[in-house]
This record gives sequence, structure tokens and C-alpha cells, in this order.
Amino acid sequence: MKKVAIVGASGYSGEELVRLLLNHPQVEVTAVTSRQNAGQTVAQVFPRFASHPRSAALRFSEPNAGLLANRAEIVFLALPHGVAAEFAVPLMQAGCVVIDLSADFRLKSPEVYKEFYAHDHPAPDLLKKSVYGLPEVYRKQIKEALLVASPGCYPTSVLLPTWPLLRSKLINPHGIIADSLSGVSGAGRKAEVDYLFCECNESVRPYGVPKHRHLSEIEEQMSLAAGMKVTIQFTPHLIPVNRGILTTLYLAPVEHFTDAAGAAAFGDKIAACYEAAYAHEPFVRVLEGKALPDTKNVVGTNMMEIAWRLDPRTGRLIVMSAEDNLVKGASGQAVQSMNILCGFPETAGLI
Amino acid sequence: MKKVAIVGASGYSGEELVRLLLNHPQVEVTAVTSRQNAGQTVAQVFPRFASHPRSAALRFSEPNAGLLANRAEIVFLALPHGVAAEFAVPLMQAGCVVIDLSADFRLKSPEVYKEFYAHDHPAPDLLKKSVYGLPEVYRKQIKEALLVASPGCYPTSVLLPTWPLLRSKLINPHGIIADSLSGVSGAGRKAEVDYLFCECNESVRPYGVPKHRHLSEIEEQMSLAAGMKVTIQFTPHLIPVNRGILTTLYLAPVEHFTDAAGAAAFGDKIAACYEAAYAHEPFVRVLEGKALPDTKNVVGTNMMEIAWRLDPRTGRLIVMSAEDNLVKGASGQAVQSMNILCGFPETAGLI
Amino acid sequence: MKKVAIVGASGYSGEELVRLLLNHPQVEVTAVTSRQNAGQTVAQVFPRFASHPRSAALRFSEPNAGLLANRAEIVFLALPHGVAAEFAVPLMQAGCVVIDLSADFRLKSPEVYKEFYAHDHPAPDLLKKSVYGLPEVYRKQIKEALLVASPGCYPTSVLLPTWPLLRSKLINPHGIIADSLSGVSGAGRKAEVDYLFCECNESVRPYGVPKHRHLSEIEEQMSLAAGMKVTIQFTPHLIPVNRGILTTLYLAPVEHFTDAAGAAAFGDKIAACYEAAYAHEPFVRVLEGKALPDTKNVVGTNMMEIAWRLDPRTGRLIVMSAEDNLVKGASGQAVQSMNILCGFPETAGLI
Amino acid sequence: MKKVAIVGASGYSGEELVRLLLNHPQVEVTAVTSRQNAGQTVAQVFPRFASHPRSAALRFSEPNAGLLANRAEIVFLALPHGVAAEFAVPLMQAGCVVIDLSADFRLKSPEVYKEFYAHDHPAPDLLKKSVYGLPEVYRKQIKEALLVASPGCYPTSVLLPTWPLLRSKLINPHGIIADSLSGVSGAGRKAEVDYLFCECNESVRPYGVPKHRHLSEIEEQMSLAAGMKVTIQFTPHLIPVNRGILTTLYLAPVEHFTDAAGAAAFGDKIAACYEAAYAHEPFVRVLEGKALPDTKNVVGTNMMEIAWRLDPRTGRLIVMSAEDNLVKGASGQAVQSMNILCGFPETAGLI
Repeated sequence: MKKVAIVGASGYSGEELVRLLLNHPQVEVTAVTSRQNAGQTVAQVFPRFASHPRSAALRFSEPNAGLLANRAEIVFLALPHGVAAEFAVPLMQAGCVVIDLSADFRLKSPEVYKEFYAHDHPAPDLLKKSVYGLPEVYRKQIKEALLVASPGCYPTSVLLPTWPLLRSKLINPHGIIADSLSGVSGAGRKAEVDYLFCECNESVRPYGVPKHRHLSEIEEQMSLAAGMKVTIQFTPHLIPVNRGILTTLYLAPVEHFTDAAGAAAFGDKIAACYEAAYAHEPFVRVLEGKALPDTKNVVGTNMMEIAWRLDPRTGRLIVMSAEDNLVKGASGQAVQSMNILCGFPETAGLI
Repeated sequence: MKKVAIVGASGYSGEELVRLLLNHPQVEVTAVTSRQNAGQTVAQVFPRFASHPRSAALRFSEPNAGLLANRAEIVFLALPHGVAAEFAVPLMQAGCVVIDLSADFRLKSPEVYKEFYAHDHPAPDLLKKSVYGLPEVYRKQIKEALLVASPGCYPTSVLLPTWPLLRSKLINPHGIIADSLSGVSGAGRKAEVDYLFCECNESVRPYGVPKHRHLSEIEEQMSLAAGMKVTIQFTPHLIPVNRGILTTLYLAPVEHFTDAAGAAAFGDKIAACYEAAYAHEPFVRVLEGKALPDTKNVVGTNMMEIAWRLDPRTGRLIVMSAEDNLVKGASGQAVQSMNILCGFPETAGLI
Repeated sequence: MKKVAIVGASGYSGEELVRLLLNHPQVEVTAVTSRQNAGQTVAQVFPRFASHPRSAALRFSEPNAGLLANRAEIVFLALPHGVAAEFAVPLMQAGCVVIDLSADFRLKSPEVYKEFYAHDHPAPDLLKKSVYGLPEVYRKQIKEALLVASPGCYPTSVLLPTWPLLRSKLINPHGIIADSLSGVSGAGRKAEVDYLFCECNESVRPYGVPKHRHLSEIEEQMSLAAGMKVTIQFTPHLIPVNRGILTTLYLAPVEHFTDAAGAAAFGDKIAACYEAAYAHEPFVRVLEGKALPDTKNVVGTNMMEIAWRLDPRTGRLIVMSAEDNLVKGASGQAVQSMNILCGFPETAGLI
Repeated sequence: MKKVAIVGASGYSGEELVRLLLNHPQVEVTAVTSRQNAGQTVAQVFPRFASHPRSAALRFSEPNAGLLANRAEIVFLALPHGVAAEFAVPLMQAGCVVIDLSADFRLKSPEVYKEFYAHDHPAPDLLKKSVYGLPEVYRKQIKEALLVASPGCYPTSVLLPTWPLLRSKLINPHGIIADSLSGVSGAGRKAEVDYLFCECNESVRPYGVPKHRHLSEIEEQMSLAAGMKVTIQFTPHLIPVNRGILTTLYLAPVEHFTDAAGAAAFGDKIAACYEAAYAHEPFVRVLEGKALPDTKNVVGTNMMEIAWRLDPRTGRLIVMSAEDNLVKGASGQAVQSMNILCGFPETAGLI
């Protein structure tokens, strides 16, 4: 049993880590931290886990890197950006493997970090060591990683559907548009008027237009896939569900078609590309027939649903994805990375 | 007091017509029809209107064109497409003005109608006589109309934000993308499993991809605005709210800019274009400063909110609109047309 | 046009007062105050009212009793308890009529106030002058009032269904149970984790068991109706809707019946009692036939729906009521009181 | 591996059985039936299970008792009442153990069945053989059962909190009131207008007042617990959540108390009673301290939360319970019964 700790376990993705790791067959959760809940048990803070045999004994502590390093081999950080990096440094020095769910180690460039996060990177040296924790793309690197930067929820929903297409040069890397709809848990467990029930229920609204922070991470990864600098359009919207992200992507195929036959011919290439990329992936499902993604099909799971349509009227490729922002978009994917780097079955604790 | 009738008053847009017209200071509702509710009073079918003084006396009848023509000067049709046209013919012959909320008279071409609605148009001769009931564009024609084809909910949400830009040639008419999110009332009051509470709540899903019926109407109107044939990309999504449509439009400005200054210069033209088009419109509000549209600001009203952003990173113009699909997207707009053609103040019964 | 001011207009009931009073045909809103929004216009703070002709000119100010007294004849207080009383004193001294939506002047006894609100009453002398603003019961007194204590949302939902029965001695005043379900706006526009979207959505929970503050007010009024001291059981629950309170009352009829015939005979008395009390009330609707209350029938209106059933199996009377907690349960009822004391038609601005 | 079949697997409780049994470590699902989905795979009908290794091979078939008996040792019936009994007879004759989720075998008396279900019982002989599948009460009998009548969702929410109190004679069996709030999945996956999203969202309503069908089952079991005939008051309400039942019970303690000290003394007995009944139950959690039940703490689990308060003002005992209507209230409890009768660990597949 690997010993793991969760730092910042009182937010939504921290809570989801608690759920997944408590039930994971090959790990033991030895510490959960939270400033505001220190001293309380997991059963008290999260009554939904109270039936778990360990929830009554496991008690929240103040976050303290030294103590954590003594207790755990792997430490998950579910902290705000900026703060996460400050914890990562001493933990890594003490020999822990760190899986960070914040944005702190996702970018390779401290300049881009500063442009999008409005402060100097707290530990720029670590950027070179970190591995972007998108298993379907970086499985080999994750296996060897000491610091995993687990991807953001929006980036996951955008990158998994586009990466194989960019890699195979089936779409034009310029002019990509990603239109995303997110449940309110994406905003975190923060006491702000904007996220009150009455402000979100019976409401739909865009935000962060046109330069949301997640753009930095999406574009860096897309550029790597395409082998050239990619700049995209990204529009997030807040919708009244607890969980789920639905992303609709507008893409330009590299081949021109003007009728159903032309679209079908190019469609065979798209299908083959996705087949090659995802037929054996346990957590990506490319839908067949008339089915379209629906967040309710993936909520609570680590699965992503993808569907695509070629439109002979416009010559465009439309790709749609659905994921649970807290699972495949955050904590589930972080556990998937842990499974890989520990040599566990990749689906352990996730099905 | 003008005498008006509502045919098909038991659906969501029919119910909204009942609400608006019962409270309208210059009309008298003389008939409401519904096959399934015939014999019951408005108070019985719609308890929320039971406090209205007329709701206890006003009784649903079977739809009968002859009787309706005797009782009303203006008849609103809130019927499925195909059926609406069959009612419109005898009503117009009997001298009624018809305001149709279905898709039957929105297109000029019976061929396009057949392509999108999969049956021959039931009354092709009337297509020439009908006026597209978008007051901000066709106010003059509505004034003289005998048959108003009130626009669809999605088309309204797409056309009002784009019409002035196309007309002024500030955007490229090719390559337009409209990504729309609609509340469930858009699907009508139909007993179908797909629209049950548990199937829609905690769910977000695209549908009708890539060729939704409303495309026909959107493209015909955009083509008229642009003076050339326009083909667009349109993706509707279903989200768990009762009412509201939020549309995000991705547009290509005709001028190229690559920095904030260039964007600002072109932005002045966009601002001036919207100012000219909508500064004096009672039901279109172009937002200022940092505000972005939110359906909760317009639900229950005939108002549309519009905001726009130029993105110097991509060179694109993003325009977002919010409306109540049952008011500005259906029944409110139909009443606005009635106000115009009756010579009432345009906001009568709508504020 | 009467000049009115709204103090504390940034909360949910304050916002609802703004909506109702801006559209009221016989008043002019001359001031709206809010510490956090001072300087902004109504249109900026509440975009949903931006289409109202006065919303752009009407600007929030800091609350200042002296200035308010100069500008308004009637002042609505939508403030927390304790704070409201402090404002009421100088306003009344300056000659304003005060309609207070807080709990500060609802009780006759400063001792009971202290027991339930945990601090000394800030202005005990005013308790004698205040009139409990339940128009269906105290219409005559409201007409002459200088200080109206507008009832709480839960108390209204409990008192209107029970008052006539207690008054007519048709039910036993002992052993009454009120089980209430409230929408989240009842908790106010407060930035607290408990009322975040993700904490309320897909959640149902009781709270304040067994001694909620509103008990004090309910029991004082019930005691007045019954002519003896009444102690009741009251259990509020939070449910995921924006607005609406549904209360189910369990009552013991004074007559014993054991079969349908006996129940029907006693039912005639209940029906007659409600008929006498509410047949001519504009804002109380006793449902007939099989209909049961539903909050969706009253949301956005000042109406209360009431239905009752006698159960021959248990001998009990079940009464159910539905109201909008922000309208009949707060701001609408306050406007109704204003209409009465100003001599306006009682339904002015409320239908 | 036990072979099990699920008849009527396309409804909400059928779907939940599929979820639980596919993941159960000691059973193999050999058949799932559904008239409307016959021929389709589980992966096609329920995309949320598509990642399960068996979902692509497991195909819905027409329900046929003969074939089922060949394929399965245990058959779960998730069918409407009346239909379930017709299936149970041949299955039992063929030697299958039947776990029925309908109301058909929950009552001992065919007369009471007819009174509440309005038709003759289709197989009255089987009523004697059936065991009421409430494991906390009938564990021993379930172990030997050939026919388990799994309890209804409301009955479970009422019986678990009251059974120990009645058994210990701590409460008066007369005058019990149960006020219940249920999510919409309780109405089943039926295409009816009343359960459309727009009819349930932003709505709260009582129904089935005062004689809901589940009363028959609740009262029969309560009478067994109390050793005398019990008649209760039961009011169900529909609230806009997918899952969850919150029940508030109003009970009369057998001891009289009038102050906090008296309440505390009696409270020790209540606490001891619950401790004796549930301290070792894996799926009942009696809350401590200030905690009150919340459906969001139990949704998706087989757990029931219970809390209680003694009110010295009224002398009453208030007990509140929360459960997932589809898990502890239906399919989870049915699997719990299966675990017992098969000799599996009782929590197998349920944690």
C-alpha cells in the first residue's frame, strides 16, 4: 500500500480526491490537510464518506510540508495557484512525488505564467522537471515523473478531442474555436455571491471573454501537438449543474469537401485517427452512430465522451466532448497519473 | 379594444401569449383554443393566471377557423409547423390578420421549406404575403402586414446581434459560427422521455448537429442582410433551465488587427454600428463596460442583451446575446409585432 | 405620486421592492440605499430592470435617515433585524411612515424578542405603535399605521391558512404542526458556503429544528387568533428552488369524524369558514376540486394558494399553502400594506 | 458467481440495479430485459455504463419467464405492480429466487392490496411466502427467503427511523405523522407532462393527499412493530432533485417532559434505543451533535441518515431521515437482501 497525502482537501477537487483515494485498492491515505477543518475527521467534514471504515479515524491536519513528507510517499496538492508551488518545493526536496492539481507546473514558460497569472512564478526551476499529466499523451513521461502537473478541467476537455487530429495534421492548427460549458463546481467551494444558488440557478452566462487563464495551457499543448505555435479562441460559460463540462470545437479540416460523399471520405480519416488514438484508452469513448455527448453520461466517472460531425454545408469539423470537471477534469485524472507512475493498473480505483 | 384569439394556447408559447395578452391594455382576448383543454377555463388550465379577473370566464374552445374569424380581428397561431398553415388560409380569407409563431411562413422559398421540414409547403402562395416579424428590421413592413411570420427563438438570438454588422459590412458573411444554449421550454410541452426532469437536470448536451431546422430561416435572413448567400455553422445545446437562450457568435471582422490599439480602433466602428441600430430600440440593450449577457437578466422580459469583444490575439469578434426564448424569442416578439401593426405604442403590454 | 424610499435595496427582498415600486402606478421611488452599491445606478446593480425608464437615473446612496426623511414620505426597510429598528426611530421622528420588512417590530413583547433574537430590543417603545402587516387580518389597523411590521415569509405561509380556523374555533389550538419548504432566496443574498449552488442543488435538508426564530411571531399571532396561548411545532426545510414556500399544516378538528360522511359534514364548515374569510380577498385563493398548491403557480405573484383535506382515517385536517417568499412572503405584502395605508386600490402595482 | 437477471431494466430502479449488479464482485448478470429496448446492448441504452467491460456484450431481451429461469438463479423484478406478480409465479415454479421491487408482495392481506391498488391481487397464495426485504428488521427471514418483497422508497424512509422506537414502546403508536419530500426519479421514467423538466423545476407540490398507496405497507409494518393496529398520516411532496427522499416524522414520546432537563433524560432512552438498533448496521447512520440529514450526503449510496430532536416546548420527538430513493429506497436495498440470502458479505457491491 502506497502512502498518500492530500493537501487542501476541503475544496471540491480535494473532496473528490478523498473519495477516490479512500476507495483505491492500492493506497493508504495517511494525511489530509485543510486550514479551516484542521482537527475534524473526514466523516465530520464530508458526511457522504462517513460510512467508509477509515473516515472516522482520519483527521484533517494543518498543512505542514515537513510532517507530510514523513507520512506520505505521494502528495496530491489541491491548492490555489501560487500556493501550490510553495508547498511543492520542500516536499520534493524531502523526496516525495508531487501530483499538483493547480496551474503552477503546467506551463513550460515562466513568462507565459506571469502573463496569465499576474505574478512571478514561485519556483521556475521546477517547470523543467514537471510532466503534464495527460495520460493519453504523456503516459511514458508520467511513468518516470517526480512532479506531475495535472491538467485543468477545460484544457482536458479541449485537448483530448484535438490532440490526435493536430498530431495527424488532419485539421488546420489556425482558427480553432473552443466553446465550453461548465458546472458551478468549477468555480470552487468559495463563499462568493456570484456562485450562490439563486445567482446560478435559472442563469446561463459567458465569462472570462476573450482571454481566460486556461488558454495558456491549452495553447502550449496544442502547439506541441501541431509542431507550430497555435492560438485559439476559447469561450467558457457557466451553467446551472453541479458537475460536467461540455465543449464544442469548431475545426477546419485540411481537406476540402462540398458534399456528403466528400465528407464521408474525409470522415474515414477522422475515424481512423480517433481509432488509433483512443480505441484502447480506458477513459476516452468515441461515440458511434447518432449518439452525441451528454454530461450526465460521464458525471461521477473518469470517462470522456467524444463525438464528431463533418458538415458538408460549411466544410467544418465539429467535435464535442463531455467530462466530469472534477474527475477526468481534475482528481480522477490525477489518480490515473498516480496509477501510471506507481505501476498500478491504470484503471485501479477509477471504475 | 382589439379583439384577439390565440390558437394552440396550451403549449409554453401559447401560455405566454395568454399571459401577455390578458394583461395588454389595448386588446381583449375573445378566444383561446386547445384540443385537449376544450371546455376548461384559463384559470383551471393555468392556475398562475387564476387571479386575473378574466381567467375564470375565458374558456378554451376547440379550434375552428370559422368561429374564430367571427370573434377576433387578430389571430395568433401557436401551432406546430404544417398545422399552422392550414389554419392561416381560412382565417385570412375571412379577413383576420394572422400572427403565426410557427415556422410555416418564415421562409420565402417553398423548396427550402421542403428541404428543412421534410414535407411540401401547405400554402405556398401565402409565402409572398408574409412579413418576417423581426421589428428591429422589418418595422415598416409589419405595419402593413396581413400575415406576420414571427421569428424562431434561435433565429432571433442570432439575427439581432449580426444583422447590423452584416448590413454595415463590418464582418465577413462567410464562416459565421453560432453556438446556442437553450432552456428546456424550447422543446415544448411534449410528453417525451428526453425532456423529463431527471433526463435534463444535471445534463448538458448538443443536439441537431450539424443541420438544425432553424438554419434555413437564419441563413435566409442573413443573406438578405449581407446581400449575398450566407451559410453558417449553428450548434444548439440543451441546458437545465426553464427559459432563456444564450448565443455566442464567432465572427470575422473585415479589418485586420493584431494588437489592442488596432482592436480599439475597429471597436469604435462596431460600437457606432450597434449604437445606430439599437440606441433607440426599446427591446435591445447593448451592454457597456465589463458586463456580459446573462439569461437571468432577461427572463420574463422582451429584452435582448448583447455584448461584444474584439480579441487581438485571434483577430475575431465575439458577440454574445441573451433572451427569453418564450418572450423576445416567441410570444413577446409576436405581441410587439401586433403593437406595430395596430398602431399601439410598441412597448404596450410588454414592460 | 407618493414619494417612497427603499433602505437596504441590494438584498433579494430589497430588489423585489425595487421591481414592484418602480412599476407601481401611484408612487415615485426617490431613493434606494445600499452600503455596498452606493454610487451605482439601479440599471447597473440590477440589469433585469435596465429597461425601466427610471433605472438609469436612480442611483443607490448611502443609507442616511436624515436625507431619506427629506426625500420620502414612506420608507421601506429591508435590513437585518436589529439594524432596522435603529433606522426606524429617526425616520419616524422625522415624520415618515415606516414599513419594516425585518423582524424588529413584529412582536409585542421585548422579552420574547430577546429570547428569540438574542439581544435586547433596540427600540422597545415602538413595539406598541407597530401594526402587524397582514392585510387579511389587520387591514383596518394598517390603514391608520405609522409603523408597519411586515410579516415574515414562513409566518405568512402558516398564518393565512390557520387564522380563520382558529378564529372560528374549528381546530384545536394545541398540537399544531407546520412543516415548511423554502427556496434558497429565503436565506438572503449572503456570501456563505452553505448557500452556494453546489451545496443546495441536488440537496434537501431541514434546519433550525426545533426552535426557529419565526416561531415567536407565528405563536404570538396564533395566540391572538385563538384567544389563548398557542405553542406549535415548526420545521423549515431548504429546497433547491430560487423562490417559493410550500407549507403543510397538520391540524386537529374540534369535531370527531370516522368516515367519509362525517368528514364531509365537517368539511362544509371548513369550506364556509374559508369562504367567509377569503372569498373576497384579492391575494388568497382557496383551491377547489382535486387541485393542490404548487409554488410554480404563485412565484412572481402576490397570491397565496390554499388547499385542505379532511382525512377520515386519522380524523385530521391537512392544510397546504403555497406563496412566493419574496412577494406575498415579503415585498409584495409590504406594498399591499402601503396601498392600504395610502388609500390606493389594494391591488395597485401587484397584478 | 451467482447468475442473476433483471426484468424491467429500463426504468430508473432497473438502471440502478444494472449499475450495482454489474459492479458486484460475486454475481454475474446473465440477462436484462425490457420490451422497448430489446436487442440493444446495455452500453447503448445506458451510455454511463459503457465503460464497463460487460456492457457491450450484455444485450436486452424480451422478458420471458422460461428463458430467464434457464439463465439465472436470482431474478430481480423492476416492474409495475400487477405485472410483477404475473412474472413471479412461473419464475418461482421454475426454482428461481425472486427479489421483487414492486408493491405486489409487500402486504400480507390481499384485501388491503385491493383497497390500495384497485385490483384483485394476481397471486394471493404467494403473499404468505414473501419476506419483507427490510434487512435491519427481517435479516433472519431474508436469509431463508425464496421471494423477497423489497420495500418501497417512502416506507423505508419512514420505517427505519420509527421501527426501534415502536418496538421499544418509546413512542405512542397513535397519531404519527410522516411528511416526505421526494426527488422526481420516484415517479419513474414515464413520458408524462407532469414530470417534464419545466413542470418540476422551480416547483414544489404535495400529491396523493391524504391516502397515498405506500400507506398500506407502512401501516402494516408499523402495526407489526407496535403490536397493535397503527394508522398514520403521510404526506408526500415532489421536489426538483433527481434523487433523494427527506422524511420528517412527528412523534409523541410516551414520557411527558416540559423542560430541557426532562427532555435530556428521555433523550438518553432514545439514544440508547437507536444505539442498540443501529450501531452495528452498515447502512444506517444516526447523526450526532448538531448535524441534520441532507439528501446530498446519501445520494448514490445505500446509506440512510437519521437525526432526532426532542422539543421541550411541545413535548414532541422530531425524527428526520435522508436516503437515496433509488438505492436504500429501492435497488441498493434489494441487493442488500440478495447479499444476505446468498451468504455474501452484506456490504458487497454496496460500498
